[in-house]
Parts: sequence; structure tokens; C-alpha cells
Amino acid sequence: MKITDMIVTSVTMADAPLRNSVGIHEPYVNRIVVELVGENGLSGFGEASYSSRTFDDLVALRPDVIGLDTANLNAILKVVGEHLGSADESNLDPVFKNFDLTPRLMNSALARTYSPIEVAALDLSGRAWGVPVSELLGGRTRDVVPFSAYLFYKHAGGGGEGTDDVRDDIYGEAMTADAIVAQARQMIDAYGFRSIKLKGGVHPPDVEIATIRALRDVFGPDVPLRIDPNCAWTVETSQYVGTELATTLEYFEDPTPEINGMSALRKALLERGIDMPLATNMCVTSFSDIPESIAKDAVQVILGDHHYWGGLRAVVELGRICSTFGIGISMHSNSHLGISLMAMAHLAAAVPMMTYDADTHYPWLHEDDEIIRGGKIRFVNGCVLVPTKPGLGFEIDRDALQHGHERFLRCSYRDRDDVLYMRRTVDPNWEKLLPRW
Amino acid sequence: MKITDMIVTSVTMADAPLRNSVGIHEPYVNRIVVELVGENGLSGFGEASYSSRTFDDLVALRPDVIGLDTANLNAILKVVGEHLGSADESNLDPVFKNFDLTPRLMNSALARTYSPIEVAALDLSGRAWGVPVSELLGGRTRDVVPFSAYLFYKHAGGGGEGTDDVRDDIYGEAMTADAIVAQARQMIDAYGFRSIKLKGGVHPPDVEIATIRALRDVFGPDVPLRIDPNCAWTVETSQYVGTELATTLEYFEDPTPEINGMSALRKALLERGIDMPLATNMCVTSFSDIPESIAKDAVQVILGDHHYWGGLRAVVELGRICSTFGIGISMHSNSHLGISLMAMAHLAAAVPMMTYDADTHYPWLHEDDEIIRGGKIRFVNGCVLVPTKPGLGFEIDRDALQHGHERFLRCSYRDRDDVLYMRRTVDPNWEKLLPRW
Repeated sequence: MKITDMIVTSVTMADAPLRNSVGIHEPYVNRIVVELVGENGLSGFGEASYSSRTFDDLVALRPDVIGLDTANLNAILKVVGEHLGSADESNLDPVFKNFDLTPRLMNSALARTYSPIEVAALDLSGRAWGVPVSELLGGRTRDVVPFSAYLFYKHAGGGGEGTDDVRDDIYGEAMTADAIVAQARQMIDAYGFRSIKLKGGVHPPDVEIATIRALRDVFGPDVPLRIDPNCAWTVETSQYVGTELATTLEYFEDPTPEINGMSALRKALLERGIDMPLATNMCVTSFSDIPESIAKDAVQVILGDHHYWGGLRAVVELGRICSTFGIGISMHSNSHLGISLMAMAHLAAAVPMMTYDADTHYPWLHEDDEIIRGGKIRFVNGCVLVPTKPGLGFEIDRDALQHGHERFLRCSYRDRDDVLYMRRTVDPNWEKLLPRW
Repeated sequence: MKITDMIVTSVTMADAPLRNSVGIHEPYVNRIVVELVGENGLSGFGEASYSSRTFDDLVALRPDVIGLDTANLNAILKVVGEHLGSADESNLDPVFKNFDLTPRLMNSALARTYSPIEVAALDLSGRAWGVPVSELLGGRTRDVVPFSAYLFYKHAGGGGEGTDDVRDDIYGEAMTADAIVAQARQMIDAYGFRSIKLKGGVHPPDVEIATIRALRDVFGPDVPLRIDPNCAWTVETSQYVGTELATTLEYFEDPTPEINGMSALRKALLERGIDMPLATNMCVTSFSDIPESIAKDAVQVILGDHHYWGGLRAVVELGRICSTFGIGISMHSNSHLGISLMAMAHLAAAVPMMTYDADTHYPWLHEDDEIIRGGKIRFVNGCVLVPTKPGLGFEIDRDALQHGHERFLRCSYRDRDDVLYMRRTVDPNWEKLLPRW
């Protein structure tokens, strides 16, 4: 389907004051919506994490993308690469020499910029051809995709500024183990999740160990548990926590920084007879990280994310790499809207080796902020039904999209800065420190 | 596109008396043509190497494939796996536990049986949606695909039996360096190839070294040269040949058997300062071979082949693995018809990292034996133009298909046996011996 227009829209949604190892979520989070219009008059949609750089690049790419065909994704990737490559003259990566890309760009800007265009192109192709996106990724291997409950230590209220129609989230404060258990109960009652992930790295490790144990006590051994302190711990601390939770965790996500750190941790745990998978979305974030990680046995589960790995097809290929090397694959999430949730569902349905429940921030999205028609997508037993309609299988709510965009224009938040907002609202002396313990 | 029928047809074409390390090609070679019929009345086509096992499996799979959708390739793979898996009760490969497949099956029977159905499904989807197969594989990155001249030491005549309308091939005997140069000239004049591959392993190594040198003398350094003795040499002999041809070969294909042998050769050559890529389609033939090969630096170029790796999408994924690990990817060939040539062209067009000229036996196909309309596909400057028409971009010649099938019924050759035919026609005492020198 020939592309006749590309419309790039920034939207802003409310976010909860969720804590992590570097600070706290700001009261608003931005996303970029990419709409590709086809010569048949249909539109396809993709969604990206907001950054001013990604937004500017997408806007600048409009004339290059118009006239391309949604069916030739490599041609779209090429124009994105050429646009980004022209701004950077560093050495070429021989792997992508056909695209004249630098490794750095390939690993970050290219992947992030290309991804929402690719999703929109697949959506539009699917709508034009009458097939769901899952089929364009190789075909669904399941009809529903399970997600996990994504718990956060958090403050009450919707953040700090007050003037930008901040709303309190529905979960309230949760800075203790008991409050996290209550948060889990509330989220599982609403969504039916059958596994739990706790964002850690906020309290001293013993508090977080106690929180995981409280979750296990309440929900029992049939609910897999994960903790992700976002590199808040040294190798030694990670070894301590890993030993304490050796029989409790499904996998142990990014306890400590870097491939070398995770590799040392893996070795230390194995020496203690603990064969708990280490997972990451921080030390292996692109294809170029994989060889070293495999050589050093640094991680046993990679959390793919089509936003950062270069689109949906790239994560299908990541799945093949993982299965080839006996590594597990799961799915990472940032705060996102329904476009991305649908893309994630189609993707997970088409990747048979993605056997872990996927991450999603979707429960933290305010009911009023969804921009697809019908409001927030329903979960049943923690699962999303993979649409069988053409494309991604939703209709955009143009009023809601416009509302989100107007809030973007009204709000002052742009590139996400958890550290700065932590200083402004919680601790003026806050420093980013990884590892902290 | 819902599949309403699957028609599996064995066809027989003339073959030339081509020599290799295990014997000689029989005067006839069989292929399997898979036709999927869609509910729109259109058909899609795929082609496989003939084996009685593959043929029987494909015929048995007909009721399972009917009713599936060409868009859901994973569902097709699943029924093929279930069919094959039910005949084998060995241990499950955790990688493909969702498909309940054994490693052995996944690596051979499944890949071979699934491949022609997948190609036919992609062809039919493309025809239904109005897009070329290259676009369904990610999009063409080039409009023409270069192939290399594939030279063989050979005898004259069309083989042995005489009763089955054997035809002499157009190239004649070529058992000397001079005759190979003449064969190269004839083939390059007709096809325009700009690189040359010699099938070796037939004469003592010094004769084959002299043949490569004769080709270099005549065609010059701008025509890349490769030799593939199909594991005819020990590590030591391979080291000798590799040293002699260190500055002459583009890559050195399967000189010696097994990953350990190739790894030892690589190490020995590097110690002599020779960084010539070793290539294979024999010691790395499936995804499960890749980890060991990478860990041992056994090969630097993998020759993919959609017939053996599990279809076109599998080779796209192989391309990603190769680029991730800094390995080159090229393309292997067996004797084949135009259906496979078109599939190979669409595939190579969609895999940007496939920068080597692909192998093809197509020049050895008799003019009268092509089963697609218009006769044999034209090459320009050694390249095939990637069709822009929907699907694979050809029309089947049903009279020629029927003729090929009638010859299959008439001929006695079934599963290929180069050793036996060598004994019958050249040397009654012939033994398969790898390595031989």
C-alpha cells in the first residue's frame, strides 16, 4: 500500500508517582503516535516512547516516507537509516553496511525511530490485505497473550504540579510490603494476572526481599514472581538477594549493571548451586550486545521490546536467536497506550518461544487517557485477546488523540527525567547511583 | 487465503553427469512440486528436493493443510511438526516445545517438508494480496540478484541408461583444468556470471589447485573464485590447499568434515596469517549447529538454503543471526527448477546481508525441462531480475509439469544415489570416502 502521508503526533497521558532505582515517574508521560495514510484512504498506527530527538526525526522523515510502500519494510528502514546516518559520520557497522548505518545509530536512534513507522506500516498492510498483524509476523500461535501484574513502590497522588489537571491514580501509596500486597490484590482483581513483577531498587534489599516473600505467602507458589531493581545492587548484593530468593523467583531481572556484572553474578550463583535465570532489558538492548552476552553466559532471559529493538519483525528474529542459543525471551514494557499493547499482543502471539508472561504498564494508564475507540482494552485472566480483525485490530479515537495532543501542548514535561522529578518532589539531594546497595 | 487443496507432484528432469566427492549425478533428478489452491481459485507453488520420505509426508499432510490459512505460516509449521512428531518419540527440544518437535526432526524432516508448503503459501498470499514474495519477507533491498557460475568436473553424455530419453548436456566432458576454463567461458557467455564456484573433491588436490589458478589466469582478479570439495580433504590437506590459494579464493567451502575439522583448519590458517573465510553448507545445516560453530569459530560464511533450513522466513532469520555474530551469509543450491530459482531470488533480495553471489545449478537444467511458462528464466550479467508481480511472479506451465510428472512415472530413479551411479558407470570399486585426500 503506497503511503500518501505520515502524521506524527505527540500525546500526553497522566502517570502515577511510581518509584524506581533512579527516581520517580513524573505526573505525565508522553508518547508519539505515528499514523501512515495509504492511497486507499485507510490509516495504520504505531506508537513510540517520546523523546524530542525521536519526535524531530520522525517529523523530518515525513517527505522520505511518503511515496514508499508499506509492504517494503526494508525500504522504510533504509530511509530512516539514511536520514539518521547523514547526521553522524562515525564508522560503519559492516553488518548493516547496506544501510550505511553506524552501530550506535543502529542500536538506538534507528531502532527507536523506525519502530513506530514499521508498526504503522504493518497495521496498514494488514488492513489493506484483510489480515491481522500477527499473521504478517509469521502467524499466531495462540489466541490470547498473558501479561504479568507490574507492581511499583509508589507515593500517593498523581505527582506534583497541580496545574495540569493531574489526577490521583486509583492505587494510592504503596511503600511497604503490605501495601504492595494490597496493590497486587487490587490489580489482579481488575485484570486477572497470574504472575507478578515487582519493580525494586527503591528500598534497601532486605525490605524488597520481605516484599517478595509477602507476595509469595499471599498468592502462593502457583503465581510466578520476578523482581527488577534496575541495576540498584552490586554483584555481591545481587548474590545475597539471589540466594535468599533462590527458590522464589521465576527470573531475576537486572539486579546489577553491565554484562560483566551479570556474568559474575551468574557464575557466583551457579557455584552455590542456584540455577535461577538472570533476565535483562538493560545490559542486552540490541543485537550487537548478544555475542558478548552469550560468550559470558550473562543472561538467560532477554526481555525484547519492539520499540527499542527495531520493530516487530526484529523481535521475531530475536526470538529465533534466543531459541537457537537456548535463551528465554520475555517482553519489556514502558508506560504505553493501547496501540502498543495491541502491537505487543500480536507480536507475542507470533513468537512461540515467548513463553513468559509479558510486562505491561497498562494497568497504570488512566481510564480516560486511552486513544483507541472503546477505551481501555479489557484483560481476561490476565490475558489480552489477540484481535482477528485486519491490521492491529482497533479503531483510533480521534477525539481522544486530539485531547492527548492538546494536553501535550499544555504540559511542560518533555523528555522523561525521573532523577530531576525525584529531587523536586521527594529528596532535593537525590543522586542517581547505580548500584546503590 | 484459506487453503482448499494441496497437490503434491513429483517431476523428473534430465541431469548432467556431474562429479563430486562422493560420486556422480544420475542422468535424472527428481523434484517435488507443491501446489496450494486457495478459496479464491488462485494457486501458489513451492518446490522441494525429492526424497520418497518427503514425498510421502507431503501427501499424507494434505488433509491437515486443507482448511488452514496461507497467512498463518506458524500454523502450517505446527501441523507439519505434529505429523512428523507422531512418527518419532525421541526427546523434545525445549526450543520448539510449543510445536512438540524432536531436534532431529526439526533439523531435517520438518525443515524439508515444511519448506515447499511455506513457499507455496507465501506465493499464494502474495498473489491474493497483490504483493511480491520479497515484500512478505521484509521487502526487497535490490532489484536484481547475482548468482555465480557453478562449474563441475564432468563426463560427456547424459548418463548411462539410454532408455529413458536421456539427453546429452550442452557442456560436454570437463575433466581437466583447460576443459573447466572452457566450461566457465561457455557458461559466462550464456549467463553473464561475474563470480565462479568450482565443485572440487574429484581430482587430487594439486589438480584442483591448478584448475583454480587457470581460472584466475583467464578471468582475472575481478572474478571471485570459490572451491567446494565437499569434505574430500583432511584438515592437513585443506591447510595445504588453503595456503596455496590464500590470495585466490573469495571463500573456502567445506574442504574438511565437521565443525571440529573446520575449526582446526581455521586456527591453523590464522596461525599462518591467512584470514580466508571458511564457508559451509555441510557442518552447519540447521539452527542447532550454530552455537557450537560460533563458539569454535568454525565457519565465517554460512550457505543458507530455504529448502533445508525450514523455508524462506527461516533464512531471513538466519541472516539476522549471521549479521549479529559477524558471519557472512551466502546461498547453497541443489539441482532445481524455476520455482526454486524465483524463491531464491525473492529471498536474496530481502536479505540485505546476503552480499555474496548465490549458488545455482540452473545452468545445468535442460532448456526443455522448465515447468514455468516461457521456459528457462533469463539471466542478465549473471543476475536474475526479482519479479515485481504478485507472489513469486511466474505462471506455471501445466503441460510441462505434466510432462515432468510422466517422466517421473516412466523413470526408475527415486532417491538420489551418487555413489551407486558412480559404481555403475565409472568405477565398480568406488567407495564413498570423506576425507579422501
